[in-house]
Amino acid sequence: MNPMTKKEIEILDDQIKKGTNVRPIGAEIAKGENALERGIVLKPAVIGFLASMGISKIKVYPNPKVAIVVTGNELVSPGSNLEYGQLFESNSFTLNSALRQIGVDDISIIQVRDDLKQLHTALSESIETHDLVLISGGVSVGDYDFTLKALELLGVKSIFHKVKQKPGKPLLFATKSETVIFGLPGNPASVLTCFYKYVLPAISKMTHRELELKSHKAILQQEYNKPEGMTHFLRAKYQDKKVSLGIGQESYKLSSFAEANCLAVFPDEITKIKVGETIDIHLFP
Amino acid sequence: MNPMTKKEIEILDDQIKKGTNVRPIGAEIAKGENALERGIVLKPAVIGFLASMGISKIKVYPNPKVAIVVTGNELVSPGSNLEYGQLFESNSFTLNSALRQIGVDDISIIQVRDDLKQLHTALSESIETHDLVLISGGVSVGDYDFTLKALELLGVKSIFHKVKQKPGKPLLFATKSETVIFGLPGNPASVLTCFYKYVLPAISKMTHRELELKSHKAILQQEYNKPEGMTHFLRAKYQDKKVSLGIGQESYKLSSFAEANCLAVFPDEITKIKVGETIDIHLFP
Repeated sequence: MNPMTKKEIEILDDQIKKGTNVRPIGAEIAKGENALERGIVLKPAVIGFLASMGISKIKVYPNPKVAIVVTGNELVSPGSNLEYGQLFESNSFTLNSALRQIGVDDISIIQVRDDLKQLHTALSESIETHDLVLISGGVSVGDYDFTLKALELLGVKSIFHKVKQKPGKPLLFATKSETVIFGLPGNPASVLTCFYKYVLPAISKMTHRELELKSHKAILQQEYNKPEGMTHFLRAKYQDKKVSLGIGQESYKLSSFAEANCLAVFPDEITKIKVGETIDIHLFP
Repeated sequence: MNPMTKKEIEILDDQIKKGTNVRPIGAEIAKGENALERGIVLKPAVIGFLASMGISKIKVYPNPKVAIVVTGNELVSPGSNLEYGQLFESNSFTLNSALRQIGVDDISIIQVRDDLKQLHTALSESIETHDLVLISGGVSVGDYDFTLKALELLGVKSIFHKVKQKPGKPLLFATKSETVIFGLPGNPASVLTCFYKYVLPAISKMTHRELELKSHKAILQQEYNKPEGMTHFLRAKYQDKKVSLGIGQESYKLSSFAEANCLAVFPDEITKIKVGETIDIHLFP
């Protein structure tokens, strides 16, 4: 017998009280009540709650459509053979993975030779059709660094070029109409450091999500000396409120990044930090 | 002049020392050296490092291929109109989002009516072609709860059925050859609680990643009373080492989940916890 179609039932169990196991109308949410705060992050429970109210479409701050433009004649794809003077292209893989980790998955990867005309065309198209353009390489001042020239020809508005930090000094930040553009230094460790310190906060602003690396205080386990006038970000390992600096901090080295779980911050004005002193660290996601 | 093709150069600047700005062969990693520890998580830096060594294929513990099987004649899709006695189907949206949040994205969603034959066919196919099958609903003992019967007919091995917890009591855990099967109670809050407490640790084991919810100690802000013999998981808000219980803890209520950032744990043997006492909480990802 389907209880849906029956008009009356007789209850023989006197333990069953009226209203037991019945969900009153409006118990989850009453008519006119505010269901969710504006700007709430779409976590699984929020998405489920929206579905349970029958809502299949909502207005969101969307994830940016991202273009990764990789420059450099010396770059070849992993899996192929290296000739003398060539390098395996790794930055697009690093950036693609870092973007996907925060849920950004509409990503185009474009590889361009160090040729002003080709770069101009590729950047023009990328900027036109994406919200965020991440350029890897060509922002220094070598003979083959055509990125700046190409962006200039496209009428891009440079917000800043070069930062007093290591690694990542040649960083460029620019915009064109609504598109946000980062010129990231081509060294693998610089790319990822700049991604975490600059690109992540930019995506955070675009999507109204809290994406910035979490900061903690940590006790330094090795002395560190540096010249004044530049902030140093070192790949490091944070555990039990202590931080150990990784070995191999040169900007081309990714191996130390692979083992690290944070960036250790050494501010520009400081030249010597001793064992046991407290420093700031930024934890990777 | 391309420096690659020139045989000799004369250096006029006596500040430039031999070896400056040259990366010695094997500086990133020497021949025969161990590049990465077995079992390392494929973070962006690790993926980039692999690419930089020219490695395009590696052996991994893959993410599971997941089927979400939603049962219930009363369920209709969000966006359509509700008839009397119907509910909007939300569990597939919740589970799909919770899976994607941890990077699992090969997901099939199958909706089945409360019909033993249809359920048998759908579950048979799902178990055959997926690593993990999450069934929403039908694991209680009502007249229309055919999930158990269908699984029995398929020769599935039940590991346990029913747990002494609230919400989520009717939970079923089973396997068939290599496929892991969870029968999740159909109530929205039960589904997500069981996902975080049981499914997440299972995926953690399958993928060799640390995915379990992070535990913290927290000071309770409201008294809580419960009968002995059942663990209660309450949706709650954790901030500054304090935990406040959300309102609306019934298992069908998702709104309290949407506002919560953790589960507060009240163990089975405890019946009264006072304001100011310390309890365990599990933070959502």
